[in-house]
Amino acid sequence: MDKVRIIEIKESIFADNDAKAAQMRERLKAEKTFLLNLMSSPGSGKTTTLIQTVERLKNDFRMGVMEADIDSDVDAAKVALTGVKTIQLHTGGMCHLDAGMTEQGLMELGTAGLDLVVLENVGNLVCPAEFDTGAVKNAMILSVPEGHDKPLKYPLIFTVCDVLIINKIDVLPYFDFDMDKVTEYAHMRNPKLKIFPISAKTGEGMDAWVDWLKGETLRWNQNA
Amino acid sequence: MDKVRIIEIKESIFADNDAKAAQMRERLKAEKTFLLNLMSSPGSGKTTTLIQTVERLKNDFRMGVMEADIDSDVDAAKVALTGVKTIQLHTGGMCHLDAGMTEQGLMELGTAGLDLVVLENVGNLVCPAEFDTGAVKNAMILSVPEGHDKPLKYPLIFTVCDVLIINKIDVLPYFDFDMDKVTEYAHMRNPKLKIFPISAKTGEGMDAWVDWLKGETLRWNQNA
Repeated sequence: MDKVRIIEIKESIFADNDAKAAQMRERLKAEKTFLLNLMSSPGSGKTTTLIQTVERLKNDFRMGVMEADIDSDVDAAKVALTGVKTIQLHTGGMCHLDAGMTEQGLMELGTAGLDLVVLENVGNLVCPAEFDTGAVKNAMILSVPEGHDKPLKYPLIFTVCDVLIINKIDVLPYFDFDMDKVTEYAHMRNPKLKIFPISAKTGEGMDAWVDWLKGETLRWNQNA
Repeated sequence: MDKVRIIEIKESIFADNDAKAAQMRERLKAEKTFLLNLMSSPGSGKTTTLIQTVERLKNDFRMGVMEADIDSDVDAAKVALTGVKTIQLHTGGMCHLDAGMTEQGLMELGTAGLDLVVLENVGNLVCPAEFDTGAVKNAMILSVPEGHDKPLKYPLIFTVCDVLIINKIDVLPYFDFDMDKVTEYAHMRNPKLKIFPISAKTGEGMDAWVDWLKGETLRWNQNA
């Protein structure tokens, strides 16, 4: 596999994370770079979804990927095979990324000339949701085997996300997962949440999700 | 469903968590109470596994359950239906429990006369592993849909656990999950880790896991 650059990021020094995040979005707008923050639980298919997304968009946009992980680089090595600029961020045990940490990553990645950067956050439904990373939009993946009750149990992440991707719909027949209920619970947390049921494995539903991301990226970069 | 008591636990005041945890174990030993700390990612089937475990052991032991969650009580309400003493711990947004927080829970639950208490930790593979709760043994659940690479990506939790339960083996045919690889990776982190493949849904493999827990509980309480 490709050799991936690994960045050890330090805990942020910025007391006011929200101000830092807002400032980063201003700069991303000026640089015409859209940043997506992708969150999920471990094992929800985040990396597979990301790779399938990159494959569908890499000819339309100049893309970059930042893979955040506690301390491995297995995901980054896989993503790098798509050919897009990929770096691995190590959080040194920390379970989230804040705006300052994300900025360190963006500086190492080099956003100049990139239209779309995806940050794959640490696999966790709790901590990452507590920090604005400075991303333009937040998306989360919930996979069918995790169950439809998750918006009841992890409210914050559903509240802060713009998009809920429901992955692994190819295994719906084997699980007691109620799509109506998850929609109801998720919209209870966040009525504006867009929901895309997909199977990153079979490709089902990927077009609608990718179209949304494409539209948002174009809109952000053209309004710059 | 039964009305479950909800405890809002406060961040621990103890600087030295390890010392606090060791002290708690001493007291649990004196009280002849075995405490199991059960950890996993969200959606791995922690509550279902716990309920099936309780059903198989509640006639052998006087049991108690502490359900930790960010702020819901759906799990505790389900567990309470088994008839065992159950309380809900709210962590107020925190993604873990330390020894002091666990002690608050034990005091509210009341361990006098209980042989076996299970703490269902917050659904998260990162933060809970960083804090010794004072439990006698630590177990984690990894479910088949999460993938066999998790010991590579979340090393610490595999290192601190005594037991790895691999749940949802009934869906093995529908996922690319390699039991040999997960065993190899998990033992790389922790050669002593005991591994129990189960399906909490069908009951397959539950006996071996429950026998282990029964043996450990008896041993702890008899040596008291």
